[in-house]
Amino acid sequence: MQDKKYLMIPGPTPVPPTVVAAMSQPLIGHRSDDFAKLHEQIVGKLKKVLQTNNDIFVLTNSGTGSLETAIANTVNPGDKVLALITGNFGERFANIAKAYGAKVDEVDFGWGNDVDLKVVEEKLAADSGYKVVLATQNETSTGVKNDIAGIAALVSKTPALLLVDGVSGIGAIEHKTDEWGVDILCTASQKALMLPPGLSVITVSEKAWRVVNDNQSPRFYFSLPAAKKVYDKWNTAYTPGVSMFLGMDAALDMMLAEGMDNVYARHALLAKATRAAAKALGLKLLSEDRCASNALTAVWSPEGIGADDIRKVLKKQYGITFAGGQGKLKGKIFRIAHMGFSDKMDIMIAISALEMALAQVGYSVELGTGVKAAQEVFLGKVE
Amino acid sequence: MQDKKYLMIPGPTPVPPTVVAAMSQPLIGHRSDDFAKLHEQIVGKLKKVLQTNNDIFVLTNSGTGSLETAIANTVNPGDKVLALITGNFGERFANIAKAYGAKVDEVDFGWGNDVDLKVVEEKLAADSGYKVVLATQNETSTGVKNDIAGIAALVSKTPALLLVDGVSGIGAIEHKTDEWGVDILCTASQKALMLPPGLSVITVSEKAWRVVNDNQSPRFYFSLPAAKKVYDKWNTAYTPGVSMFLGMDAALDMMLAEGMDNVYARHALLAKATRAAAKALGLKLLSEDRCASNALTAVWSPEGIGADDIRKVLKKQYGITFAGGQGKLKGKIFRIAHMGFSDKMDIMIAISALEMALAQVGYSVELGTGVKAAQEVFLGKVE
Repeated sequence: MQDKKYLMIPGPTPVPPTVVAAMSQPLIGHRSDDFAKLHEQIVGKLKKVLQTNNDIFVLTNSGTGSLETAIANTVNPGDKVLALITGNFGERFANIAKAYGAKVDEVDFGWGNDVDLKVVEEKLAADSGYKVVLATQNETSTGVKNDIAGIAALVSKTPALLLVDGVSGIGAIEHKTDEWGVDILCTASQKALMLPPGLSVITVSEKAWRVVNDNQSPRFYFSLPAAKKVYDKWNTAYTPGVSMFLGMDAALDMMLAEGMDNVYARHALLAKATRAAAKALGLKLLSEDRCASNALTAVWSPEGIGADDIRKVLKKQYGITFAGGQGKLKGKIFRIAHMGFSDKMDIMIAISALEMALAQVGYSVELGTGVKAAQEVFLGKVE
Repeated sequence: MQDKKYLMIPGPTPVPPTVVAAMSQPLIGHRSDDFAKLHEQIVGKLKKVLQTNNDIFVLTNSGTGSLETAIANTVNPGDKVLALITGNFGERFANIAKAYGAKVDEVDFGWGNDVDLKVVEEKLAADSGYKVVLATQNETSTGVKNDIAGIAALVSKTPALLLVDGVSGIGAIEHKTDEWGVDILCTASQKALMLPPGLSVITVSEKAWRVVNDNQSPRFYFSLPAAKKVYDKWNTAYTPGVSMFLGMDAALDMMLAEGMDNVYARHALLAKATRAAAKALGLKLLSEDRCASNALTAVWSPEGIGADDIRKVLKKQYGITFAGGQGKLKGKIFRIAHMGFSDKMDIMIAISALEMALAQVGYSVELGTGVKAAQEVFLGKVE
């Protein structure tokens, strides 16, 4: 018997039963008053989560679609774009800009590191011609959190727009869209927002609208002006994923009932416990504590042991899925997600199974030491 | 008490409980073997439904996204496009081509009419420079079915590609992708495929691939070459709507278990009964029987009575939603969908409530006559 499954990858994440129930309601027409009310409610709740009064559009596509929406509406061929890259998803954002013909200045800070603000300051000072700057809030491939507040403080002094990929961090790590001055924020349903993949969310500032409205790149499904045209009636330009909207309303209710400060504190606690456990087991973490993500933890596999061998044992014998490494980190790291519908016992499961799997692949481990380290964090015995 | 709702619009349509249950399963990782198996299964089943051996991609966006995928991968600025328009969605397809800079030759056959093959033949003979031809299988705004076999026979003799919007007809009206020679077929989840909105499907012929691979328009999320690159591993380029994939697998099982011939015959029967009932009530139909859609029926509101007044009574007093008219038909027609998870009793509900609503808004109607006409169709008493 091995029916219980524990999905611990950085999206899709487990969906709470309440949200599944909401999504299972009978369909409603997307041009009905009922849908308009639902849409209005969701945007109102998203404004609280994203701390913004900007327009918010819920798009029927996964996260990459929202990144392309950001680019297609602000970038024309030949435009200068500054891409701040800390991993796979930073590279993807830059590649979308290239697909739209931008001249992309790619600054790679190295996988496992965060964006160095001094470099950003120098770049912006040396060249005043950037039309947009691309940044990643939470780099899913490395478990690194970037200082969006710091980046925004620099970019907002220039004419450039700041486009932020918040796909895997929003809902796990506090983000202040308006206070920090983020022009376009993108996120998606299947991470800390506790839904299946299929919806994404984008916010658009006043500064961004001035560029968006005049942009010349081809856009239809991803057109923000088309979405804006029917926004005041709480309509959508094209058919929305109605069931997912019903689920999003329920998921946002759960988050707001818990209180966003509590949601962020919970994620921080889970991350702290996971990191403490990994260290107690003698494992090396990919990122420094300073810039470690609260949404997921990336861990180096012990020397001589393939990360995917550990993952295979976890999956086959314990029903647990950790994510592997992407790109240049393939086979070298594993990533434990603790975002969204995730709590202390999930960390107990992850760490206790990891201890057994490590022992099974030949790594010398004292069983229970990782669990103990995590427990001490939960019991408040660690600063 | 009025909790029962009857959604009779041409998408989203009601989702069968079996499909809801499938979508409610715990999430699985989209880079897992389990997902690859699911993906392979779905494509195998779609090949049967769409009668094709072409590549089939399931995209995470609603139908308009698949239309844009067709255009973004085949059309460059300045390309000549022939758009065969029979209503709102034909116009939309043409507008997407314009957004990508095409020179679009729009032939409007009039709302309520189907495409005249003679005109297509003349157009193709007069100008050999069309790169693509756009056609709509089932025009949702008017309830008209176009002769895709006939159009394809003409286009396949030329170098042009035939792109077909099959969003609202696939699964309701037989379509032979390969036998007819349709280069790119687009459809979506929320119509006769019995799912919520959020997935679309696109098929690509060998002839189309030669154009797609060399196309220069910006594309990333909608890139067919990116999708193709990971297709042999049953992977997707970007995060797929996993729960919807689970639902699609179940919905396709239902359709194939019923047998596609039976599915099409059921739709034809429901359409025939609906049309017979409307005529028996003295109502005029928008389209001739010859080109009437089996997926939905568009009916003129009686003179002097607003279609939306009838719809309001239906919704408020009987929990029934018919669709209204779009564009130039707004307020003048109502549309009754009978596609997907729809059977004889749905028509009984629709027609009996329509009779009451007509009486309530002041139209002289003999109660029961519409129902009787539909019953006679179901009992085989009408040729």
